[in-house]
Amino acid sequence: MVAYKRHVDVETISDLTIARLSIYLRCVERLLDIGVETVSSQDLAQRFNLNSAQIRKDLAYFGEFGVRGVGYNVAELRQYVIEILGLDHEHRILIVGAGNLGTALCHYSGFSGDNFLVVGVLDSDPSKIGVATPAGLLVEDAARLAEIAEQRNAEIGVITTPAASAQPVCDQMVSAGLRAILNFAPIQVKASDDVLVKTVDLKIHLEELSFYLSNSEVE
Amino acid sequence: MVAYKRHVDVETISDLTIARLSIYLRCVERLLDIGVETVSSQDLAQRFNLNSAQIRKDLAYFGEFGVRGVGYNVAELRQYVIEILGLDHEHRILIVGAGNLGTALCHYSGFSGDNFLVVGVLDSDPSKIGVATPAGLLVEDAARLAEIAEQRNAEIGVITTPAASAQPVCDQMVSAGLRAILNFAPIQVKASDDVLVKTVDLKIHLEELSFYLSNSEVE
Repeated sequence: MVAYKRHVDVETISDLTIARLSIYLRCVERLLDIGVETVSSQDLAQRFNLNSAQIRKDLAYFGEFGVRGVGYNVAELRQYVIEILGLDHEHRILIVGAGNLGTALCHYSGFSGDNFLVVGVLDSDPSKIGVATPAGLLVEDAARLAEIAEQRNAEIGVITTPAASAQPVCDQMVSAGLRAILNFAPIQVKASDDVLVKTVDLKIHLEELSFYLSNSEVE
Repeated sequence: MVAYKRHVDVETISDLTIARLSIYLRCVERLLDIGVETVSSQDLAQRFNLNSAQIRKDLAYFGEFGVRGVGYNVAELRQYVIEILGLDHEHRILIVGAGNLGTALCHYSGFSGDNFLVVGVLDSDPSKIGVATPAGLLVEDAARLAEIAEQRNAEIGVITTPAASAQPVCDQMVSAGLRAILNFAPIQVKASDDVLVKTVDLKIHLEELSFYLSNSEVE
């Protein structure tokens, strides 16, 4: 059975641990797809190029799980990670900034999937308001952020505005009661301590490729 | 002076180490902005909520650096990380898939910045070919991928097509001689061993927010 410490002290769990749990979830889902029922941390590590000690340590943060010498029941492990990550219920998202990136995220796989739902895309540009996105949402007036957030029970704000608008939009999201913010604008934004803000910097992925290119010359 | 082992065995360096080097680079650039000239690993860790032992370990992969008891010269540390990451020269990028995400990436900060340059955005949809992106690039015919990649010395391919086209586009990128591929399509793609493929899953960031929301209830 699945039993773990709910409401762990989030301060003690690093972002990297959480990112790894997301990766474990994807691995476990692939195992289920191919009919694997039981897996040890060593198996899991070997199949997906992970570290078995790290897997055991990461999962142990959340309580006892798995049977020594036998491993994890794959379906239970999936459910376990889903519950840790809070993916057992839907999270509603408001996107502010209906440019290309905001529009892309409206119908990005996963942003409107099983566990997440984009409930609105907002912009302050009158020429964008009222226009339908490919996902079928109509762009709404960013001035209505607070009202829309409350009406639709939004929890998560996504900022896809230009850099100059990111902090004012973040402030409005906090006032509107959004509790977690994903910022794609190329600038750091700040919120009160009870709101989690993550800035996504897609350039990091290019830098990883650059490292590879520079350290494995074939010429 | 900066001196480190060039062409380290990339297999021994984890993706997470590389991602952390990107983070160190951003931290060091902020220190330079505010006029800090010397920093110890402890300082760096404390200012940016990092782990000082991890910093020393990550940098040590690439040779001796820093003076014990004194720390790092910030400008040298910046240059050191830039060289490790291969950001001391330009990398040219071809984007295939001129939908909203591909179009957004054409002018995304960093994708056409100091070290990276988007040299083309391609699509197979005749209604998109010839259309100008907000970044000023004209969308070109994806059938010309090999020719364009060679003419413009592209090294990196970015896939922003729907899932069904991702593997064929990846195959064409490999044939065209691109050596590193960033895949945004929601599907795993495979390439020969001498080509690095990274799939970016933006949902991971939402899952991190979900974890936070589920483990720090304020109701």
